Amino acid sequence: MTKKKVSDLMGVKNLLFPYLPVLVGANVDGKPNYITIGLVGWLCYDAVSVSVGRKQYTNAGIKENRTFSVNQPMASMVRQLDYCGLYSGRKVDKSVLFENFYGDLQTAPMIMECPVNIECRVIQIMERSIHTVFIGEVAAIHLGEEYLAQGVLDITKVDPVFFAPDKKEGKYSGSYWRLGEYLARAWEVGRDLTGDEGR
Amino acid sequence: MTKKKVSDLMGVKNLLFPYLPVLVGANVDGKPNYITIGLVGWLCYDAVSVSVGRKQYTNAGIKENRTFSVNQPMASMVRQLDYCGLYSGRKVDKSVLFENFYGDLQTAPMIMECPVNIECRVIQIMERSIHTVFIGEVAAIHLGEEYLAQGVLDITKVDPVFFAPDKKEGKYSGSYWRLGEYLARAWEVGRDLTGDEGR
Repeated sequence: MTKKKVSDLMGVKNLLFPYLPVLVGANVDGKPNYITIGLVGWLCYDAVSVSVGRKQYTNAGIKENRTFSVNQPMASMVRQLDYCGLYSGRKVDKSVLFENFYGDLQTAPMIMECPVNIECRVIQIMERSIHTVFIGEVAAIHLGEEYLAQGVLDITKVDPVFFAPDKKEGKYSGSYWRLGEYLARAWEVGRDLTGDEGR
Repeated sequence: MTKKKVSDLMGVKNLLFPYLPVLVGANVDGKPNYITIGLVGWLCYDAVSVSVGRKQYTNAGIKENRTFSVNQPMASMVRQLDYCGLYSGRKVDKSVLFENFYGDLQTAPMIMECPVNIECRVIQIMERSIHTVFIGEVAAIHLGEEYLAQGVLDITKVDPVFFAPDKKEGKYSGSYWRLGEYLARAWEVGRDLTGDEGR
């Protein structure tokens, strides 16, 4: 294989795709607002980060209340997901798109239609060049019971949406994708890779 | 929809699935080592976090050199991916599994067979309950040229691997999945969701 060193690919150094885009919820000016975010990360089993553009409407709401929610959409919600990334809460009322609800934290609005909702309390804020990184500690999780199988999340029922970059008419663009086929069993398929049983 | 408040689902509060597991590379005792990690996050376009168990062999290597690499495997590498999560570098030599190479940082070993390799310099370390979170600034990206289409990453050529939890014989387990079908065009499918053109 030939490797190419990419110093700057359209200004984007982030090349770990696809993303699992989510709807980040926050109260802004006392009203539920949601923004579509690709830059999400798990830091431990109880801490998650979301990165929100510094000028975004949602950014101010998270800073004001020090709470946010992470809502995972399903494939059937792709139009709403895309809409919430296209239009600013300064101009449109995104709270009308969904059934909104609140949990323990009271200021982190959540989307009833999403299979998984995670309420977070901000524990750290990092200002980066383009984004504010909000690190949140998980306060509560809300889950639609129909997405569980034997007490574990059933990924085929969640029907997740992914985002990947591409080009359209020569310009940088992106597309949404669904989950595909079962590949292999974890903590098993690699067990006999070598003769070495050196656990 | 009925929502269930999940205060503790098998001790795991992290319910945003599937993960995009990666192989995190570090020199440990002067030799390349790799560990399979699910807790990965993008913090900005030029910063990524990886969370490594506090007692893992790789953890010490990252702390020693203050560098690490993120290597994205393809579906055809699922056995190696699983192996690197099952066995510790204290017991087995994982450098023999791959063609190893180094880039600018010189101490972050990378895997030639992976479509995407990202070299990172540690800029912050957070100790959490179970994991050490290493936040790295991207120093360089190495990309197999055959994974590009019109200068953009072609996600179907990368053929990514996902991880999701499940149960096997009543016990918590996990499975690997592939990318599925194209769903919709981003920044377009949601455009005419409402009559409101309030951008």
